[in-house]
Amino acid sequence: MPRDAEKVRRRLQEAALHLFEERGYEPVTAAHIAAAAGVTQRTFFRHFSDKREVLFSGEDVFIAALREALSSAPSDFGPWETLRHALREAEPTFVANRAFSMPRQRIIATHPALQERAQTKMRDVATALVSSLVERGVPERSASLAAQMAMAAMHQAVSAWFESDKSHLGDHIDQAFQEVSALSSPAPRK
Amino acid sequence: MPRDAEKVRRRLQEAALHLFEERGYEPVTAAHIAAAAGVTQRTFFRHFSDKREVLFSGEDVFIAALREALSSAPSDFGPWETLRHALREAEPTFVANRAFSMPRQRIIATHPALQERAQTKMRDVATALVSSLVERGVPERSASLAAQMAMAAMHQAVSAWFESDKSHLGDHIDQAFQEVSALSSPAPRK
Repeated sequence: MPRDAEKVRRRLQEAALHLFEERGYEPVTAAHIAAAAGVTQRTFFRHFSDKREVLFSGEDVFIAALREALSSAPSDFGPWETLRHALREAEPTFVANRAFSMPRQRIIATHPALQERAQTKMRDVATALVSSLVERGVPERSASLAAQMAMAAMHQAVSAWFESDKSHLGDHIDQAFQEVSALSSPAPRK
Repeated sequence: MPRDAEKVRRRLQEAALHLFEERGYEPVTAAHIAAAAGVTQRTFFRHFSDKREVLFSGEDVFIAALREALSSAPSDFGPWETLRHALREAEPTFVANRAFSMPRQRIIATHPALQERAQTKMRDVATALVSSLVERGVPERSASLAAQMAMAAMHQAVSAWFESDKSHLGDHIDQAFQEVSALSSPAPRK
């Protein structure tokens, strides 16, 4: 996307989030968002198919970044280490989007229909992780299990990071991955 | 539910699954299902709010069974062992429902809207697991992570079980739980 188009897109996203937080998700229309961003409705629809997509269109970029990071992981890494590596590599994408992701999460949390959509998008991310691991020679079942474990760890890490302004996402990722190991270690924990 | 009502309910479910598989999910109506089960539409709606619920209403029974099993786990079990115990205890519920669950899964797999609904129901199960673990004194974050890991393992186990007629679900549960441990163990696997 040309840089100007990217700027307009970002402005539309910011305007949408601002309006959703101010007035609630339902009453806001694409026309309101376009007006608030100072563009025409037609421009809005060049960037997003509907107002819901304003919240979800970033996933493709994120998936592409993850795929890239997965394929660049050292070849002697097992699936779990590969996933940790990829998520750590994607940290800058998360950091760059933090101002967008936090209000986005609050809006999604209050709308069941958006939550279902968010889950579908998360499944797309998981599918991308699985296929990248399979390309690295990991059996499909292990890849699927490892991807779901990593998604759970990542979700945990991002939540912790959102709650604490000054922390580093990478540290939370490492901690969550370690906690998965500790929780599932065969030794009793009590 | 009285036994006769339970029988009618089960007959409606079987009729619905049969029709969904035969004609596809969309064209089948509540009226078709009621007719095929030999009851009135009114009876259908006493059991299910709509045709979609025929596929999803069993989760409440399943959640109740899991909650019961979680609270009866030995008190020295850590969260992971508690979850494995509970899922193994719930095995008879799965076995009793196998004839229903397999076609159900095929129908859901071909309809994105049903998949979103299934994911929401799965989240309800996860929420129940988390709150039961928290009641046992497990910190909420660990409970949440452990529940998601267990759900991933369970999903894997059920898929493997569906694929192999003569296997035991309990063995697949143990294997999947072991695989989670092995995958996330700190030692490199390659």
